[in-house]
Amino acid sequence: MENTEKTTIGTDINTDKYKNIKRHLEREMINLNPIQRGGILPTESKKVIYEYWDGYSVCDYCAGRLDQVETPPIHEYLEDASKFFGADITRPTHGARESKYVIMNSVCKPGDYVIMDGNAHYTSFVAAERAKLNIDIALVEDYPTYRVIPEKYKERIETLEDEGKPIGLLLLTHVDGNYGNVADAKKVGKIAKDKGYPFLLNCAYSAGRMPVNAEALNADFLAISGHKSMSGSGPCGLLAISNKNEEYSKQILKTSKKNIVKELEMLGCTSRGIPILTLMTSFAHVIERVNNWDKEVKRVRWIIDELEAVGFKHIGEKPKNHDLTKFETPILDEIAEHDKRKGYFFYEELKKRGIGGIRRGATKEFKMSAFGLTDEQTKYVVDSFKEIIENGRKENNLN
Amino acid sequence: MENTEKTTIGTDINTDKYKNIKRHLEREMINLNPIQRGGILPTESKKVIYEYWDGYSVCDYCAGRLDQVETPPIHEYLEDASKFFGADITRPTHGARESKYVIMNSVCKPGDYVIMDGNAHYTSFVAAERAKLNIDIALVEDYPTYRVIPEKYKERIETLEDEGKPIGLLLLTHVDGNYGNVADAKKVGKIAKDKGYPFLLNCAYSAGRMPVNAEALNADFLAISGHKSMSGSGPCGLLAISNKNEEYSKQILKTSKKNIVKELEMLGCTSRGIPILTLMTSFAHVIERVNNWDKEVKRVRWIIDELEAVGFKHIGEKPKNHDLTKFETPILDEIAEHDKRKGYFFYEELKKRGIGGIRRGATKEFKMSAFGLTDEQTKYVVDSFKEIIENGRKENNLN
Repeated sequence: MENTEKTTIGTDINTDKYKNIKRHLEREMINLNPIQRGGILPTESKKVIYEYWDGYSVCDYCAGRLDQVETPPIHEYLEDASKFFGADITRPTHGARESKYVIMNSVCKPGDYVIMDGNAHYTSFVAAERAKLNIDIALVEDYPTYRVIPEKYKERIETLEDEGKPIGLLLLTHVDGNYGNVADAKKVGKIAKDKGYPFLLNCAYSAGRMPVNAEALNADFLAISGHKSMSGSGPCGLLAISNKNEEYSKQILKTSKKNIVKELEMLGCTSRGIPILTLMTSFAHVIERVNNWDKEVKRVRWIIDELEAVGFKHIGEKPKNHDLTKFETPILDEIAEHDKRKGYFFYEELKKRGIGGIRRGATKEFKMSAFGLTDEQTKYVVDSFKEIIENGRKENNLN
Repeated sequence: MENTEKTTIGTDINTDKYKNIKRHLEREMINLNPIQRGGILPTESKKVIYEYWDGYSVCDYCAGRLDQVETPPIHEYLEDASKFFGADITRPTHGARESKYVIMNSVCKPGDYVIMDGNAHYTSFVAAERAKLNIDIALVEDYPTYRVIPEKYKERIETLEDEGKPIGLLLLTHVDGNYGNVADAKKVGKIAKDKGYPFLLNCAYSAGRMPVNAEALNADFLAISGHKSMSGSGPCGLLAISNKNEEYSKQILKTSKKNIVKELEMLGCTSRGIPILTLMTSFAHVIERVNNWDKEVKRVRWIIDELEAVGFKHIGEKPKNHDLTKFETPILDEIAEHDKRKGYFFYEELKKRGIGGIRRGATKEFKMSAFGLTDEQTKYVVDSFKEIIENGRKENNLN
């Protein structure tokens, strides 16, 4: 019997490298990486992880579908999330990209055109390509603002219609990952509505940080990232759906012929473990910070003012409306030319001061976020930047 | 400025219900739920969770793709996993169902037929429906064995070919979730190979519990569940790919036109957080238990012998080759008829004894697994079952 023989499979694999794996960044440093600042867990979520870390733990009292589980209160959470986001139906997903793919794969047909903004995240392209859609771009403003131009959507719709090309979806990046511009979603949503096309808002950098309401923004669907902006332990996200056009929700939530409760686009169930739990336990924290968004906007504007005064140039819309900030930093580049550590001096100097999350070697430009830092930490970061620049100037006899 | 106004969104939502969420089952009970026994984390994985619980934590040193990350050693792990499973390329996914969908969406064309066994998991159906494939069933043996009949695949291939229907994939459930039968994958793989069709083995209940080798089983792809059988914190899984037919891997791993490093079927990156980390840290534990599979098979056979002696009837193949076990339990049904707690008496009596994971109210039949229990725990479970039956007989004056 093969099954009752002793085996030694894989015993030659050295698994020591998978022991005691440590991550230092978050615990020991102030992390300025924009993709990580909105995903830091509050204590409540660290607690729930201890309870639910085992595989398939959320399935203890499942009657067939994750989104209907009452213990833990997943079903209630999704109802609350719908309310919070001005939507009618919410489903857990593995993240914003997976939410986008669900929409593209169900609401659109292969060969359809999806019109997206010039600031669209790579995952919007990848999801569209996976769903075998054609991609059409609504151009954004040029350097240095890169603002989305809502009217461009109208132009592209009319052009595609004139060419007889089928439009399946309008997608707008609510806040883009390069410049942190906040697009005028309401206006694009109005265009979608007037023209009769479904409208998907990519809220990976907005929902969970700032106020987002599907109804107010004329959005049919919100793609929401748990690990990026909802203090969720990755991978997780939400898909919030407006039920105004029932035809859309019928397509999105279509169930299996074989097992009539299972939704095809969810492959039955999606976030079957810790991630969905942390979304729930982080919700109170998220509600609180969304309502403190005014403070975050003031914080980023202050940072920009301070750093532009010492030679940084902020790229993107003004006034600034989001924590994700891109700077051109000619002064760092100048110091790097003289410093023996070359481009690495900035990273090294920040590290000495307990600041991380800025790309190693970057001196021409970089992205950062101070989202959720205390005022004291924010000031410390800005002072550190200033000090590094001042020292660099002095040591290298620059003006 | 909308962005700098104070808001009170969602402050009417009662978030108290998301505080102090507890799970009692795993900590306080011996859990016999087959979908959960292979997903229990070893200490090493609990440690890594504490390091990596924040959102997007694995991306600290990412150069563009999750599967290539070196710190933590994800790339190395995937190489080791390929070796362990006799495959050439391994990718992290969100679970076995997502792995299956990747294959169906890339290797097959809409309208293709996928031939699957009569024991196929509902997610195989759902994934095929989502990928717009037709489903054809290779029937299994009747009650009470339900064994997969490899020759049926050959019959179905020939029938579909005769009817001029395009076959896109053969899918076999290596170990099914109803009876825990271990199918003869090698034989089905040989048929696939001889006929020239791609062969996907659903290893959700096998890989990580028992020896599985893609090459030895003639499998082109293994769909592996992290939370079900690899001691992974859900949701997570692996897709192990044989590179023998390079045409397949080219289709599966096709990259984006927009961003040429991003794989479409992975939507760029999949398991961006704790789940992939726990797969890595659980690997040593998994290797060890796979090589102790002979003991698990002996354990389940002993349990069946003991429980059949007191009136249970084991459903599925004999001899038994897997821990997932289905029993018909006419004796429990008889007791339930007389007991004032009706069908709930069994669940209640087990609970009193610290045993959980058996469906509440089930007395006609139930599924269980003792995978990974100590010998002492196994004996305690069997003795508890016997005691409950004996007491039930006595109290209700049954023979």
